[in-house]
Amino acid sequence: MNAIILSIGDELITGQTVDTNSAYLSRRLAERGVATAEHVTVPDSPEAITAALSRAAGRADVVLVTGGLGPTEDDVTREALARAMGAELVLNQRNLEQIEKLFLARRWPMHESNRRQAMLPAGAEALENPVGTAPGIAARLGLARVFVMPGVPSEMEVMFRDQVEPRLPHLEGAILHRVLHTFGEGESTAASRIADLMKRGANPLVGTTVAAGLVSVRVVSRGRTPQDAQRLAADTVATLRQRLGDLVVGEGDESMASAVGDLLRARRQTLAVAESCTGGMLGQMITVVPGASDYFLGGLVTYANGAKTKFLDVPGEMLKEHGAVSEPVARTMAERCRERFGSDWALSVTGIAGPGGGTEEKPVGLVHMGLAGPGGVEATHRIFGGTRPIVRLRASLAAMNNLRLALLRK
Amino acid sequence: MNAIILSIGDELITGQTVDTNSAYLSRRLAERGVATAEHVTVPDSPEAITAALSRAAGRADVVLVTGGLGPTEDDVTREALARAMGAELVLNQRNLEQIEKLFLARRWPMHESNRRQAMLPAGAEALENPVGTAPGIAARLGLARVFVMPGVPSEMEVMFRDQVEPRLPHLEGAILHRVLHTFGEGESTAASRIADLMKRGANPLVGTTVAAGLVSVRVVSRGRTPQDAQRLAADTVATLRQRLGDLVVGEGDESMASAVGDLLRARRQTLAVAESCTGGMLGQMITVVPGASDYFLGGLVTYANGAKTKFLDVPGEMLKEHGAVSEPVARTMAERCRERFGSDWALSVTGIAGPGGGTEEKPVGLVHMGLAGPGGVEATHRIFGGTRPIVRLRASLAAMNNLRLALLRK
Repeated sequence: MNAIILSIGDELITGQTVDTNSAYLSRRLAERGVATAEHVTVPDSPEAITAALSRAAGRADVVLVTGGLGPTEDDVTREALARAMGAELVLNQRNLEQIEKLFLARRWPMHESNRRQAMLPAGAEALENPVGTAPGIAARLGLARVFVMPGVPSEMEVMFRDQVEPRLPHLEGAILHRVLHTFGEGESTAASRIADLMKRGANPLVGTTVAAGLVSVRVVSRGRTPQDAQRLAADTVATLRQRLGDLVVGEGDESMASAVGDLLRARRQTLAVAESCTGGMLGQMITVVPGASDYFLGGLVTYANGAKTKFLDVPGEMLKEHGAVSEPVARTMAERCRERFGSDWALSVTGIAGPGGGTEEKPVGLVHMGLAGPGGVEATHRIFGGTRPIVRLRASLAAMNNLRLALLRK
Repeated sequence: MNAIILSIGDELITGQTVDTNSAYLSRRLAERGVATAEHVTVPDSPEAITAALSRAAGRADVVLVTGGLGPTEDDVTREALARAMGAELVLNQRNLEQIEKLFLARRWPMHESNRRQAMLPAGAEALENPVGTAPGIAARLGLARVFVMPGVPSEMEVMFRDQVEPRLPHLEGAILHRVLHTFGEGESTAASRIADLMKRGANPLVGTTVAAGLVSVRVVSRGRTPQDAQRLAADTVATLRQRLGDLVVGEGDESMASAVGDLLRARRQTLAVAESCTGGMLGQMITVVPGASDYFLGGLVTYANGAKTKFLDVPGEMLKEHGAVSEPVARTMAERCRERFGSDWALSVTGIAGPGGGTEEKPVGLVHMGLAGPGGVEATHRIFGGTRPIVRLRASLAAMNNLRLALLRK
């Protein structure tokens, strides 16, 4: 059983946008034991899409299509699929009602063009889109099953999970993916601790990837049954956790922020943050986790020096003597933030995110981080590499990791 | 003249790595007037690569291939190309010398497997790789010109620039891309204003895409000379700007945050923010722009109700009567924030980002936004669709857009 993934869009084929949908879908298919044979990208051209659909359906059991379901003239995937199927486009009443409902709920004006989005090739089935205006399509093309989803990643992911995945044929044999996220050592150092488990062709297969500031360790196990695959993976994951110790932040959908949140919630403790160079990113990352209000009270973004003095009582003399990017300032920010919010813990970040503002003594990437808690205040500093957004991301992660390790020590 | 771009690698087809090479190459080809017809990705399988090469060569004038030139067993692009050409693999003495020189210079031990990297299909030409061990290949397959480059982006980019680009047939004509970013209306409404410009096959070609919360309008112009293409694009961009008016946030690398920043800097005015449901995202987005310290003073992330009262004097009774997600609270937050920071402008955001916390009266996605400025305080509210991160992104953008429009009105 194999799949071809077809991405549609002028913005993709001209290189204005990088296609991330195909990688996402390949990963999700692999979890179900379906191998991807090919990714194909074509422009918003009815002829190109029709030809690509027919070629794919002739060579794969499942064809996943993303893009070209929007309301505008250059969204022609519906027409191209109908043409490939030799079917008429017909208005789907239920689709239309759902689109009308959505526009009503959001109080948007509905256009004639949005009615086009309710059309389906005759004989095809509509796939509900709970988060956008473009319903998907499930159809047969020759012997292949074709599923068409929106190109917007957030809409596509929900539709794949809720509508497409349950419709995929059930398979013998199983492939299981697990992934542990680590923080605190570089990829090669982390990998050197588990080198003997990383042999090519092994089962489970173990590999490392760097993504979003974390080093992730992937485990892919194959078994005759899901239970077999699970058992194999569980053994390897247990060994990895032992070797990697407190570098392991979490698994799967867990993140640094959710790991910290879970530890705080379990201890019924609260957190506040004081940020300078991250400008709100630390608070943003903490609150992306649903239910963060259980433990997160808020933050002070003291970007200008005046704000550091006004809101966090950082003495003007301290700023003058040590500079805003310094250990005493990081300590004071964390300490005062904890007092101001009345939280159990407070984190602070002050640094030079670049590209400008670096000196020989204080280079771009230098970040001081404070951690105030029931036992007092600590401060650490690091020099992070990378561009402005990367330095800020790494600083936010490192600050949260300091708290994670402190909570684990308790 | 058209091109197909073929990416090779198990890590791509399994979704462990996102292919960025194809987008890069499409952009570079477009600059030379070569349109890309298709991106194709296949695994490290000799059969799959041979078949994909033959299909591509039958339908395109130029085939650009990346990946599968490494020294290991799963690097089989050389073999697959030789098979597609019906040629033998032969050792290229100059390649071998260059590889040996590289290993000597870096004091690495040279393996027998690295000799494989010096092999070429008979009749093909070697492309020098100054930054890695994998030489590239230039060959003819049927009527098509085929260029094979390493998969590592940094090596591929140097080889494309120095070795492939000079070998591409010289073309008459040029293709130019420009993109305008808009905010404030959905894709279909924005497109309805410019529908007459969005005809398929027109020159310039105009299309819309939704990305990162903005509706972008792409303009692709073709001309006999770069100057022709520029003139055509400039005319269309001028018409688009006129039609879309203040929906246009910026062009190219410009963002909502940089547009707001430029307006503030030009007026020598300052900004502070008060955030609830966005948890710091608004401040984070504003400060991702280098030099934001010219106008951004800081923010108060008042996530818990207690923090709203403590830091922004939101009366407990107001929270009780209207709830934290309400117009009076948004107004008070913006007003007090402006006072506290002593800024010219202040933005506030309070809403229900979901997935929990919605009611019939106040559904998930409802966000109240305040804007305090020299002329007083305004408040607006919207019901945003999408997941928690999307609601927060849209709320942050909408808040900034309120300020952008206020600054434009002055």
